[in-house]
Amino acid sequence: MNEVLMQIKNRKSVRVFEERQVEDEVKNEILNAALEAPTAGGMMLYSILDITDERLKERLSVVCDNQPFIAKAPLVLVFLADYQRWYDAYCFEGCNPRKPGEGDILLACADAIIAAQNTVVAAESLGVGSCYIGDIIENCETVRDLLDLPDYVLPAAMVVYGYPAESQRIRKKPVRFEKDYIVFKNKYRRLTKEEHREMHSIRNKKSGLLERDASEIIKANCARKYMSDFSLEMNRSASEYLKKFREK
Amino acid sequence: MNEVLMQIKNRKSVRVFEERQVEDEVKNEILNAALEAPTAGGMMLYSILDITDERLKERLSVVCDNQPFIAKAPLVLVFLADYQRWYDAYCFEGCNPRKPGEGDILLACADAIIAAQNTVVAAESLGVGSCYIGDIIENCETVRDLLDLPDYVLPAAMVVYGYPAESQRIRKKPVRFEKDYIVFKNKYRRLTKEEHREMHSIRNKKSGLLERDASEIIKANCARKYMSDFSLEMNRSASEYLKKFREK
Repeated sequence: MNEVLMQIKNRKSVRVFEERQVEDEVKNEILNAALEAPTAGGMMLYSILDITDERLKERLSVVCDNQPFIAKAPLVLVFLADYQRWYDAYCFEGCNPRKPGEGDILLACADAIIAAQNTVVAAESLGVGSCYIGDIIENCETVRDLLDLPDYVLPAAMVVYGYPAESQRIRKKPVRFEKDYIVFKNKYRRLTKEEHREMHSIRNKKSGLLERDASEIIKANCARKYMSDFSLEMNRSASEYLKKFREK
Repeated sequence: MNEVLMQIKNRKSVRVFEERQVEDEVKNEILNAALEAPTAGGMMLYSILDITDERLKERLSVVCDNQPFIAKAPLVLVFLADYQRWYDAYCFEGCNPRKPGEGDILLACADAIIAAQNTVVAAESLGVGSCYIGDIIENCETVRDLLDLPDYVLPAAMVVYGYPAESQRIRKKPVRFEKDYIVFKNKYRRLTKEEHREMHSIRNKKSGLLERDASEIIKANCARKYMSDFSLEMNRSASEYLKKFREK
C-alpha cells in the first residue's frame, strides 16, 4: 500500500485542534489542491469562501447546529456550488441564457465537493486534520445573509481544518460498513431486513463497542439523525435553495 | 511540495486508455479508498455500482451523451447518492419514517462525490487515470431502468478508469482560472463584466492557445455547454430525480 493509500485509509475527522495557526503556505497548498481538482468542462462551478472573520465563524458555528468547535478551527472554508458566476457572464455578454436548473446545480455541487475532498486529502498530507460540516445546508435565509449568497449559489459543504489535538490523533477511526453492502455489480440491489441487521451487527462488533442489537442501532439512528430537528431544518432549507433552480 | 500534493497538481482527466485491464488488487484498493472516505454521521449515504457487463457499459456510453470511450474503459464505477438503504432499514424496523427530502439527498450526493474523489486520488497514486462523466445525471428513466434504481437513489457521478494511453500522458493539463476569481474572503462577491473577461483572458493566455476574445469564449461556452441539448436534458432529468424528494 503506497503512501497516498495509507493516508486515505487512516484519515479520520478531527474536531479538536491544537492552538496553532495553519500557516499561510500550508493554507495555500490546501487551496491550490481545490483549484487543481477535476471540474466539469473546465468550468470550475464553485467558489470557496475563506472564513477569517472571527465573529462570522462564531455565527456559523451557531447556525450549523450549535457546534462550538467550528469557531475554534484555525481554518474554515465554505465550498459553494456556484452557477451565478457563469450565468452573470452569459448575461453580460448578451447570450440571453435560460435560468440555471436543477441539473446545473447538481453538477455544480459535484464540482464543489470534488474540490473540497481534494483539500481534505491535501491537508492530511500536511499533517492538518479536517472535518466536514454538512449542517451548512441548514438555515438558508441566515446563511445567505451572512455570506452574501445570490440566488444561483448553494453551500455544498463547509470544511474546518487544524492541527489535531493529541486526543484526536489517538482516537480510533470509526469502522465502515462492509463492502458487500455498499458495492454492487452492474445493478442496484435493495437489502433485505436480515442483511440490514447483519450490516449493522458486523460493524458494531468490529468497532469493539458494547454489544448492541442491530434493530436498536437503526432505531436510534432514525431518531438522532433523521427525525431530529437539524435534519428537518436541513430539508426545509435545501428546499429553499433548490426552489430557485426550478423557476423558469 | 510533497508527493500527494504533486499528484493532485498533476492529475488530469484521461479519456484514452491502454488495452490493459485494471488488476483486481488495484481495483480493490480503489474501492477501499471510497469506503474509507469521510461520510456524514458515519452513514455512508451512497452505493457504488461496478459496471462489468460489457453490454451495459455500451448502453451507458450512449445514454451519457454518446461518448464511446466510456465503453472502452476497463473500469467503470457509478456513485449513487443513496437514501434508499437507510429509508428501507427504518421501515423494516417500524420507525415510521418521513420520506427522504431534498436536504437528505444533497447530503447523500456529497457523500457519494467525496467517495468518488477519493477513488480518483487513489487511482492516480496507482498509475491509473480517470475521468468523471457528469452526463450520468441525464436520461433518468433509462438509467433507472438499466441500473435498477429505486426512488430514493440518484446517480451523483460516474467515473471511468484505466491506464492512460501515451497520448494522454503527454497531454497538457487544462489551465484553471486564477484563485482571485474563485476564492473570496468571508463573503461571496459577484464579478464585474470586466473581471469576467479578465478571468477568461488570463486563462486563455496561460493555456498558450490562439489568442481569443474573452467575450467570444464566454459566448461559445454558453452555446456549447449551457444551451446545448445535453445540458437541457440534464436539467430535465435531474428534475425527475429530485421530484421524488419533494413528495410528502
